[in-house]
Amino acid sequence: MPRPPESQGNPPEKLWGGRFSPEGGRLAEAFTASIGFDRRLWRQDIRGSLAHARMLGAAGVLAREEVETIVEGLGRVAGELEAGTFPYRVEAEDIHSNIELRLTELIGPVAGKLHTARSRNDQVALDVHLFLRDEIPGVVRRLRDLQTVLVERAETDFGRVMPGYTHLQPAQPVLVSHHWLAYFWMLERDRGRLIRAWQEADRLPLGAGALAGVPYPINPDQVGRELGFSRRYANSLDAVSDRDYVLDFLFACTVLMVHCSRLTEEIVLWTSQEFGFLELDDAWATGSSIMPHKKNPDPAELVRGKTGRVTGNLMALLMTVKALPLAYHTDLQEDKERLFDTLDTINACLQVLAGLLATARLRPEGLERALAGSVITATELADYLAERGVPFREAHRLAGQVVRHCLERGISLQELAPQTLAGFSPDFGPEVLARLDPAASVARRTSPGGTAPRRVAEQIALCREILVLDPLTPSEAAAKI
Amino acid sequence: MPRPPESQGNPPEKLWGGRFSPEGGRLAEAFTASIGFDRRLWRQDIRGSLAHARMLGAAGVLAREEVETIVEGLGRVAGELEAGTFPYRVEAEDIHSNIELRLTELIGPVAGKLHTARSRNDQVALDVHLFLRDEIPGVVRRLRDLQTVLVERAETDFGRVMPGYTHLQPAQPVLVSHHWLAYFWMLERDRGRLIRAWQEADRLPLGAGALAGVPYPINPDQVGRELGFSRRYANSLDAVSDRDYVLDFLFACTVLMVHCSRLTEEIVLWTSQEFGFLELDDAWATGSSIMPHKKNPDPAELVRGKTGRVTGNLMALLMTVKALPLAYHTDLQEDKERLFDTLDTINACLQVLAGLLATARLRPEGLERALAGSVITATELADYLAERGVPFREAHRLAGQVVRHCLERGISLQELAPQTLAGFSPDFGPEVLARLDPAASVARRTSPGGTAPRRVAEQIALCREILVLDPLTPSEAAAKI
Amino acid sequence: MPRPPESQGNPPEKLWGGRFSPEGGRLAEAFTASIGFDRRLWRQDIRGSLAHARMLGAAGVLAREEVETIVEGLGRVAGELEAGTFPYRVEAEDIHSNIELRLTELIGPVAGKLHTARSRNDQVALDVHLFLRDEIPGVVRRLRDLQTVLVERAETDFGRVMPGYTHLQPAQPVLVSHHWLAYFWMLERDRGRLIRAWQEADRLPLGAGALAGVPYPINPDQVGRELGFSRRYANSLDAVSDRDYVLDFLFACTVLMVHCSRLTEEIVLWTSQEFGFLELDDAWATGSSIMPHKKNPDPAELVRGKTGRVTGNLMALLMTVKALPLAYHTDLQEDKERLFDTLDTINACLQVLAGLLATARLRPEGLERALAGSVITATELADYLAERGVPFREAHRLAGQVVRHCLERGISLQELAPQTLAGFSPDFGPEVLARLDPAASVARRTSPGGTAPRRVAEQIALCREILVLDPLTPSEAAAKI
Amino acid sequence: MPRPPESQGNPPEKLWGGRFSPEGGRLAEAFTASIGFDRRLWRQDIRGSLAHARMLGAAGVLAREEVETIVEGLGRVAGELEAGTFPYRVEAEDIHSNIELRLTELIGPVAGKLHTARSRNDQVALDVHLFLRDEIPGVVRRLRDLQTVLVERAETDFGRVMPGYTHLQPAQPVLVSHHWLAYFWMLERDRGRLIRAWQEADRLPLGAGALAGVPYPINPDQVGRELGFSRRYANSLDAVSDRDYVLDFLFACTVLMVHCSRLTEEIVLWTSQEFGFLELDDAWATGSSIMPHKKNPDPAELVRGKTGRVTGNLMALLMTVKALPLAYHTDLQEDKERLFDTLDTINACLQVLAGLLATARLRPEGLERALAGSVITATELADYLAERGVPFREAHRLAGQVVRHCLERGISLQELAPQTLAGFSPDFGPEVLARLDPAASVARRTSPGGTAPRRVAEQIALCREILVLDPLTPSEAAAKI
Repeated sequence: MPRPPESQGNPPEKLWGGRFSPEGGRLAEAFTASIGFDRRLWRQDIRGSLAHARMLGAAGVLAREEVETIVEGLGRVAGELEAGTFPYRVEAEDIHSNIELRLTELIGPVAGKLHTARSRNDQVALDVHLFLRDEIPGVVRRLRDLQTVLVERAETDFGRVMPGYTHLQPAQPVLVSHHWLAYFWMLERDRGRLIRAWQEADRLPLGAGALAGVPYPINPDQVGRELGFSRRYANSLDAVSDRDYVLDFLFACTVLMVHCSRLTEEIVLWTSQEFGFLELDDAWATGSSIMPHKKNPDPAELVRGKTGRVTGNLMALLMTVKALPLAYHTDLQEDKERLFDTLDTINACLQVLAGLLATARLRPEGLERALAGSVITATELADYLAERGVPFREAHRLAGQVVRHCLERGISLQELAPQTLAGFSPDFGPEVLARLDPAASVARRTSPGGTAPRRVAEQIALCREILVLDPLTPSEAAAKI
Repeated sequence: MPRPPESQGNPPEKLWGGRFSPEGGRLAEAFTASIGFDRRLWRQDIRGSLAHARMLGAAGVLAREEVETIVEGLGRVAGELEAGTFPYRVEAEDIHSNIELRLTELIGPVAGKLHTARSRNDQVALDVHLFLRDEIPGVVRRLRDLQTVLVERAETDFGRVMPGYTHLQPAQPVLVSHHWLAYFWMLERDRGRLIRAWQEADRLPLGAGALAGVPYPINPDQVGRELGFSRRYANSLDAVSDRDYVLDFLFACTVLMVHCSRLTEEIVLWTSQEFGFLELDDAWATGSSIMPHKKNPDPAELVRGKTGRVTGNLMALLMTVKALPLAYHTDLQEDKERLFDTLDTINACLQVLAGLLATARLRPEGLERALAGSVITATELADYLAERGVPFREAHRLAGQVVRHCLERGISLQELAPQTLAGFSPDFGPEVLARLDPAASVARRTSPGGTAPRRVAEQIALCREILVLDPLTPSEAAAKI
Repeated sequence: MPRPPESQGNPPEKLWGGRFSPEGGRLAEAFTASIGFDRRLWRQDIRGSLAHARMLGAAGVLAREEVETIVEGLGRVAGELEAGTFPYRVEAEDIHSNIELRLTELIGPVAGKLHTARSRNDQVALDVHLFLRDEIPGVVRRLRDLQTVLVERAETDFGRVMPGYTHLQPAQPVLVSHHWLAYFWMLERDRGRLIRAWQEADRLPLGAGALAGVPYPINPDQVGRELGFSRRYANSLDAVSDRDYVLDFLFACTVLMVHCSRLTEEIVLWTSQEFGFLELDDAWATGSSIMPHKKNPDPAELVRGKTGRVTGNLMALLMTVKALPLAYHTDLQEDKERLFDTLDTINACLQVLAGLLATARLRPEGLERALAGSVITATELADYLAERGVPFREAHRLAGQVVRHCLERGISLQELAPQTLAGFSPDFGPEVLARLDPAASVARRTSPGGTAPRRVAEQIALCREILVLDPLTPSEAAAKI
Repeated sequence: MPRPPESQGNPPEKLWGGRFSPEGGRLAEAFTASIGFDRRLWRQDIRGSLAHARMLGAAGVLAREEVETIVEGLGRVAGELEAGTFPYRVEAEDIHSNIELRLTELIGPVAGKLHTARSRNDQVALDVHLFLRDEIPGVVRRLRDLQTVLVERAETDFGRVMPGYTHLQPAQPVLVSHHWLAYFWMLERDRGRLIRAWQEADRLPLGAGALAGVPYPINPDQVGRELGFSRRYANSLDAVSDRDYVLDFLFACTVLMVHCSRLTEEIVLWTSQEFGFLELDDAWATGSSIMPHKKNPDPAELVRGKTGRVTGNLMALLMTVKALPLAYHTDLQEDKERLFDTLDTINACLQVLAGLLATARLRPEGLERALAGSVITATELADYLAERGVPFREAHRLAGQVVRHCLERGISLQELAPQTLAGFSPDFGPEVLARLDPAASVARRTSPGGTAPRRVAEQIALCREILVLDPLTPSEAAAKI
């Protein structure tokens, strides 16, 4: 049995205490430091501190000049951060302490007063709430861009018929536009989830202190107003230990990615030689290092693959929060990297999908070949009989016999002679043949939400109504249907 | 290396084709049959069929007498199902076919007409939508029961002080009531998620047919009205392939279970000998088969343990839906068992937690011992100095020195002599000692959402306002804060 | 915004304590009772008790007649369980207590002595260890059946050429047999994981008592020998709190299901009209309730869908065990349902896949159409040039130009005139055309593990060598390659 | 209802195609580029190329001077990479192309010949196999360090008695050393999993080409020997699409983290004021920004929290691989970031735990207080009676009565008068009292694997035997028990 090669080995007699004492501090510091990733919150941190300082001034906790000094100092710190000249220090652990340390260097000990009536616990919570409020609208806009592309495709490809599939078997013909719009509605639900995640983030945690509230006459509503919050937490313990709003966002992104994985699976299928329904623009496909004829849908595959990553981030945070007693625990620090990774992934995937779909070319010859090779309108035979009073189950059975007849002879339904059909059932009249054309079949599916062109046109109009609405408003139009 | 014992072995020369042909059908049938679990949907299936039949009648697709026969027949089938005399058949695969088969036996071939303008795909989707709409209110009521218990506990235990913890270290004293109410607010957010899951289920899929809509002049709005839906799907492909509404419910339950795991973790901690804050009623604890002195919080542990199960169900369905092309695939049949298991688990856990908490007894002696053993009001020393103009960071440092002094001597903060304190900083006056009483510390945390009794009393009043509202309405009261 | 209908409401003034006291016990009992599912362990429980009783006798802890009485009594209990006449009682909570209670009824108080030197904690652990040791060989045999089918298919389909895909784009032609055998090797690794899971279960926990060991002169090695264990736990705390062996099994099954999901995804693809590579036997496909022409690969889809379920079970147990202090907690009771569900799922899926694959029919016309429609041997052009000294990157570029030329003209590579080829590079001689035949391309890939017929024949021989080995032995043959 | 603020809006009439064409390429390139993370594989990539080039030379595919030029050029590239002067280019997508591009700049077109008989697909697979083979031994060594600390603690703390817990209730006294060693054995199983993951990575994929093998007389065994592989893949399709070996490593790390989460949960508990069993060295705890008295076990909490992250990575890759057809898909590119993140996390956590445990101080006063406050030796009463022939169930009942008697009077078991005991059962003799001392109880648990000092001493000796073995060898000593 193969085994790994010799290890270098540990000096076994060395005392562990001795080994760790000198460097333990540095190791622990590096391990718990979050400045490597939470620096991304600097804008939110500065903004929260400005609002907090002004509120402390208004409440009489800080003198007016103290507030002015702090505000001016925070402005200088922000300038350094923006300019990239800010001196980050790992030993200052996180972005909050880094900023405070720098503020102290710039304005002296008065900087310490900024910490009055505030704890790291509610400050971190505030920053993440603000960050999500800042970032979700951008996600929604990218999602809306992708919805727009889908509607534009539905318009451009209007009239094209394709096999509709269940079990990946041709089932009934549908309009390509109808297929594109199915994804519009999935994304519309995702938009709802993202807006709700935004609303969950819209809750001010500041004022909770470490966990119990603070013994100062603070005015959280002033801070909330300045920062644009419309609600605050009703309980300080909850405020510092809650991560639901992050979970809500991670879940919204996970379902969105599951939808994207369905769409990209279809893109991979449709660009296959065997389906041949779609051709990607060269910019959105790549070649092979060894096979000169390949045109691979890499970006679509990568979006599909990243569904696992985003789902994994959700599972990670659920597991981290499981069974944590109140209130704050350092375990919760793990929320930020999962959040940032999910946000960046989702933003990239939405852009990629929009670009990829907008520039792809439908291949009508592929659609037609697929339709011609199928007996996809067989349902029409059953429907036809049912309309003439044959119980549906019996109609279904008879249509099945006709299908078998065609498959055995390798002919299409449309090639059947009227008398052959009549041989299966006297109820088959010659006009049934016209109904076996895929386009005719599509046209007859006029039930609301069906694939008949006039229904799909209605759908497009409805989508257009939604698209002109502000993307961050839950769509009334959608709610009405 | 140990290895499993000899296997009995397969007759290796037997041809597989030969082996499988005869019994393959039965194996496949048993494998794909869902009647073992989807029989739970029979009420929804009957109700949906009744509405569908009446609508077909109103639309002129079925004759009035046909509708009457079907409606009467469905009533008899329902009667058999209710009475437990219904003859289930595995070979009829699912509840839908079982019912139709029985209906045919009872009323003859006209039963087949019920299938007009409807497919298994939209019928299954309808049943699950109806099921969630039927069941979620019950979950919300159980959740509301648990919220009620928490508020009652907050009222009963009002005034009791406990150590508030961060990192499981005593941090600042809080009211026990404040701690209970933190869970009220988590559950209130869970209620919001459940209501939204209900709203997502409130969308009629019928009329989508297999995937493309149907070629009959159906009126889904009539069906929707009869069944109480306020919306319908805008796209038939989406209608039959969507499982978002199940995912929304599974996610709502997962976060709810994560909250329950935090609460039960605390119950396990608090009923430990070392904490000794809570004693469970004998009905909600169990003994040991080998240790006569044990009183184990089994039900609380089991709730905590089931958090994994419910999260696993969410993971399962996300993975199942990943990368499925449109429209229906049999993979989606896997949604039902995950849903049923989650629903039953969550309902049981909510009931258990309500019963367990309602009958548990707070142990004041445990709380007092924990407070006495701590230097939990040390923050007061820092706050005191900060109020006198000492920068907070410096105040924090000085308070730390006092704490070290006490810990080294094994005395509590309240045992310090005034002159000793003054030795650490001239800013310490004798009145600081009164602030070191935990109750006084609690009383001073009067910021909104803080733990001061008057703030907690406000919280209780707010919770009571919410509790008298209908549980299925998103609480305006909560939204305002 | 739609909202759920009025709830029936709770009597809000009723005291919870009052509500729960009378029925709390029954609720808690029903909630924590495991008899509903752990009855499945009865064989293991009886076997473990028999061995324990005999060992207690040999150690002099029980008198010889006591042991005889107990052994005889356990035999009668087993008889009742086997015959289905055993009187299960929910109030006796679990299978262990049910058996003990019945034993007491049958043989009187001496039954209580069976509990000497044993606790519920190590008894449960023993039963699950035994159960996995009993069941894993059956899983391996079913897996071996599936491997056998794959090898038989590789033999039957030998010589057939298909497009090999990367990115679902035709890449290079391969033998169909080569494709089947890729799954053989995945399953062979799965077999290794299952055997290792068996080895992890092969560790005796009895003797650990509740957590600390027992104060009796017991001889666990005797128990171990009788029960066939080759190892025991070295630490009693570990013995009662370990669930790694269950996780190992769940993980082995999860990876196996991921492999099955890849295979079933391909079955779904290959049976699609567009690919048309495979036709399922009627027994392993089903029709549609509304579309008479459909032949849906439901069993394959369902296997694919169940991948989520099995993965969810793994996630569930990982989350349940996370952060549990030593030693036993009731949370761990959640392991059994996850285990049973996974075991049943995996056994069913393996059988279904074996039956389905054994009876499916390859469709050569589909393979040929796919090969004819592609420029899949373009790599040959590059290889040809590279062999003549053209740097590979340059050869690749030139072959790409030839491909583009063909695609633009809609001709296949084999239709190129020699002079046209020479126009792209003087290095192209006329003999290159022979290499553009897919079968020729396949034949040239003679590197070890490659798709050339003689290499695939070697592979088949190697697989056959492995198949004649006992399935529960890690295959030496496989290790050698 | 609050809603997000106005979005900036998209110019709605702009054509998407127009928008994307110019920049689509760059977006796609940035999206699919992996150079940002796979640069970490450069050592493996160079090593693999060196072995491949030499083999091509030996096989006569490349001339000797060509090989020399390539080998020398790769040496220069490696030098630049080592020195940090290598010019990375995003447009060259991944580390493999970056290296090849640079090699071409340095040695001219002969560099292109390195790509002969190799594809990106088998090259990437080779690099990840090599990477895992390189990195797993380091993980095992860190794990072994932690095991060493546990054994040293078991030695240092030998003789100390603590309450053993089940359900977090004191159950029976155990040696602290016994508790530490329970984790030794969990880690020992983790070591086994890591070694198996190493063995799974020990399989050469090179020679598979893109998917079908290569048409050159290559000698993979030479490459394998040079790179230290003991096996190779038997099937080229499997070789390029397999990610089992990554999953095996991710699973091994996940279970290891679950074990770490149990240990850190206990560290958090034990360092709580209420338990007070352990005090962390100042280097391994941190203070609070607002509470001067806090000493928080942040590093332990963070390890516990990261359990979610590592589990999430496993779930991510399982979901990514689910339902991927053969052979390579870009989805699989997602494996690397999950792998790197898990590796770095696990290495950091193992170091942190070793340092933290090595320097922590046991607090005997906490242990004694916990023992004194309990009736933990009540099992002795039952055992005592059972030894005297009382059926165990009856003995258990009587001991329970004694416990209740003590709890009601607030006295400990040891304070009972002999005659009081005799009042409960005539079988209680006066010598029973001596058995109620926790140390005596511990001493009596002499069953193999039990907590009696001589058994624990045996355990320590066994652990020491294992520790002197090479850490990468599956321990025979452990297997024997």
